Amino acid sequence: MNKRLINFRPIARVVSVLLLIIGALMLTGMPFSYYFGESMLPLLYAGLTTIGAAGLLFLVPRAPRGSLPQPSDLTIRKREGYLIVALSWTAMVTFGMLPYLYSGMLPNVADALFETVSGMTTTGASTLSDIEIQPRGLLYWRSLTQWIGGMGIIVLTVAIFPLLGIGGIELFAAEAPGPTSDKLHPRISETAKRLWFIYVGLTLLLGVLMYVMGLSGYDAINHSLTTMATGGFSVYNGSAGVFPPRIQYLITIFMFLAGVNYTVLYLSIKMRWSEVWQSDELKAYIGLVIVLSLFFTARVWYITGNPLEQSFRESVFQVVSLITTTGFVTADYTSWAPSLTMICFVLLFLGACAGSTSGGIKIIRNLVFLKNSYLEFRRIVHPQAIIPLRLNGQIVPGRIITHIFNFLLLYLILFVFGSVVLSVLGLDFMTAIGAMATSLGNVGPGIGEVGPVDNFSWLSAPVKLVLCFVMIIGRLELFTVLVLFTPYFWRLN
Amino acid sequence: MNKRLINFRPIARVVSVLLLIIGALMLTGMPFSYYFGESMLPLLYAGLTTIGAAGLLFLVPRAPRGSLPQPSDLTIRKREGYLIVALSWTAMVTFGMLPYLYSGMLPNVADALFETVSGMTTTGASTLSDIEIQPRGLLYWRSLTQWIGGMGIIVLTVAIFPLLGIGGIELFAAEAPGPTSDKLHPRISETAKRLWFIYVGLTLLLGVLMYVMGLSGYDAINHSLTTMATGGFSVYNGSAGVFPPRIQYLITIFMFLAGVNYTVLYLSIKMRWSEVWQSDELKAYIGLVIVLSLFFTARVWYITGNPLEQSFRESVFQVVSLITTTGFVTADYTSWAPSLTMICFVLLFLGACAGSTSGGIKIIRNLVFLKNSYLEFRRIVHPQAIIPLRLNGQIVPGRIITHIFNFLLLYLILFVFGSVVLSVLGLDFMTAIGAMATSLGNVGPGIGEVGPVDNFSWLSAPVKLVLCFVMIIGRLELFTVLVLFTPYFWRLN
Ligand SMILES: [K+]
Ligand SMILES: [K+]
Repeated sequence: MNKRLINFRPIARVVSVLLLIIGALMLTGMPFSYYFGESMLPLLYAGLTTIGAAGLLFLVPRAPRGSLPQPSDLTIRKREGYLIVALSWTAMVTFGMLPYLYSGMLPNVADALFETVSGMTTTGASTLSDIEIQPRGLLYWRSLTQWIGGMGIIVLTVAIFPLLGIGGIELFAAEAPGPTSDKLHPRISETAKRLWFIYVGLTLLLGVLMYVMGLSGYDAINHSLTTMATGGFSVYNGSAGVFPPRIQYLITIFMFLAGVNYTVLYLSIKMRWSEVWQSDELKAYIGLVIVLSLFFTARVWYITGNPLEQSFRESVFQVVSLITTTGFVTADYTSWAPSLTMICFVLLFLGACAGSTSGGIKIIRNLVFLKNSYLEFRRIVHPQAIIPLRLNGQIVPGRIITHIFNFLLLYLILFVFGSVVLSVLGLDFMTAIGAMATSLGNVGPGIGEVGPVDNFSWLSAPVKLVLCFVMIIGRLELFTVLVLFTPYFWRLN
Repeated sequence: MNKRLINFRPIARVVSVLLLIIGALMLTGMPFSYYFGESMLPLLYAGLTTIGAAGLLFLVPRAPRGSLPQPSDLTIRKREGYLIVALSWTAMVTFGMLPYLYSGMLPNVADALFETVSGMTTTGASTLSDIEIQPRGLLYWRSLTQWIGGMGIIVLTVAIFPLLGIGGIELFAAEAPGPTSDKLHPRISETAKRLWFIYVGLTLLLGVLMYVMGLSGYDAINHSLTTMATGGFSVYNGSAGVFPPRIQYLITIFMFLAGVNYTVLYLSIKMRWSEVWQSDELKAYIGLVIVLSLFFTARVWYITGNPLEQSFRESVFQVVSLITTTGFVTADYTSWAPSLTMICFVLLFLGACAGSTSGGIKIIRNLVFLKNSYLEFRRIVHPQAIIPLRLNGQIVPGRIITHIFNFLLLYLILFVFGSVVLSVLGLDFMTAIGAMATSLGNVGPGIGEVGPVDNFSWLSAPVKLVLCFVMIIGRLELFTVLVLFTPYFWRLN
């Protein structure tokens, strides 16, 4: 009997369960449609279609006995892991765009796909040039796509990425199975549940606080969903800029929390402060936010002549929004000064803590790289000495450093290559690098013609499709997607 | 007796000899001044000052017996190696700017220093807004600074960088002493002489060919000096664009040759073709030039509507000029199309072959990175397999790959950090990244307001000084300079 490379049954099971959840979540938008006097049919039909597809997938038969290298026909191995991630995301965006298509809100497939990918990857770039005229039920679904995406990222970080061992993930994954194990760890699902609980809890807390502090229930629900997902979709054209200062401060705090590693958040809730404070990444994150906020405040205050409070609020909001890759906007950061535009552009790459829903490179990788670069000078002066890199008080193995370097350089080469592709497709220099950086980092707003006060609706369909692919690559830590395009993946040995 | 960290006598000896040579070379400009009816005094005084300084340095006394860790008081060890490089370059630019200051051609120290650093580092960025009105004797000195810089780079690559073991240099240095040795290899000076011979020979050949093909003797000398140095200074405001097509093709060929590893050039002269063809870097270099030239030709022909020959000539000239980091200009490459501007910007980083006088990252490092990234995918699919990286048919040790990764990432972080600094100093986004990329890569022209038809004269003095530092850091392979600013270097252990 022929050996099979891939066991499709567990993949189909996972995708099926996922579509079932997504279909059910679509239906939760119907009360909003009803409340605001809009048609409930697009969400109903989209939800039923998705649930129907879930049912069909459940029918995928088991592989013939003995044709697979693994013991049980539902065991997930590395290869299946990659495909689960890729196919799950493909299924999520394919069915996720149905409400936009059915309702005619975004009748064009390129636009509907872009909006859905931008949602599910928690990017938050939009093809809607006027958000406020859209049906409220569908805008709720749009916000929900980000929250679903955020939830997906948490389970990926806890359960899938460590199994695949990419990008030095061992450094920050909670209870990672380690590079030798090839199967899902039984405790993983426990961890994932715990972190989901925090994610859901913080979303609820933020929603309630927003409502108490004066937002309508609808606004509170939408913006708590997209804040905790570090997504950045808003139901207003003016993004978070339309809210009163107290809400902007509230959002700033929760964006910051959403950028913290969920394992660290869990330790904080358990009051295990000494362990919390061992995280070098957390310290760097806090330090970076403080330093950048103060620098921005001083510059913005000086340049704009606005009141100090406003300068501080806009500065800290924008710094936290960009570093957590949320992408909410309360001020046009490209209008302040060239130096601040430049720093904001750099922030599109950084990312917040690994193990959060933020995108970009993540602080821990930048930290490893910077520390190692500094140590490299010491190694140059003392070539015979063994000078290890320590993080959180522990030595980081050279293997992981190499993985991180590979990740960083691949990130940069993708950025460069993508920018060239976008410019060949007709974008000007600033817009090309802005769109590429913000898509790869899952931030949302960029620079140039896709800046904080612009949107992505005017781009051509090919550009939108390229950016969709880029957003997914960025969200899935590069290697997860790209490995599928190498011949190695599809060979039995 | 106190142990000394650094033995200054051999350093002083090297710098002294260097200044002697530079002073003597200054005097060679006097015949041009005489011929063109200009004052010979600036070059005479500058030459004598430099030679005088050389004499003074010769008087540095030997260190007290037993105070040094090395056997002979003229032995050069790692620490002295770094200081020799840094102090030699400092001395070269300090005395190299005297002709500009004495003559009043560039009365401002920031301008004179910038022009000299730009020359000695073979960058070719200029603070002269009108070159053609300048004294011809001094313009000859200006061209000569690039040729001296190029000669310096060859000896550094052969003799000093391998000793310091930075940036994965072991991969391409001819007869490198290896990382364990701590002293200069006796055969090194033989190799250096051989390569200098090629450098001098090609310069003479190009000069003669230019003269035979119709340039004046003065033009032929200046442009052969700056072509072989991959420098890019011209005595015309229109750069090489003022020359007839046949001269532009000639320059293209010699720019290309100047970008080849000198060891490979040596093997070619010896007709050892099988060894030449083993160089993966050479193959990549040739392939890259061909592919980019054809792509540019097609786009430029289509966009500008110029004749095919002109489109081809301008394209291949600009591609070779940028990839070899020469920086001659025959067409405004930022006016063609956004996509070509983008690619030209990327070319500011690439560099040609290591072991040539070209700047930038160098093809071999890009090659190692790209190959390793590709192999990383194979490693992800087969985590247990040992998958080595091969270059020129040989396995590259992991240690060297790490050095190269460190170099690449440090290069990029310097670019980002420098761009931020320049934007804080007031440059707009495009100009900041253009000036930073072209200075770090020792190319010459950039994008934005320092593009191919602009110059650097309008920049403020602080910006010029930052760029001087950046040009030197880039020219000296980053670590050589930066290590001096770490505490490790100045501690005995
Ligand atoms: K986002
Ligand atoms: K140059």
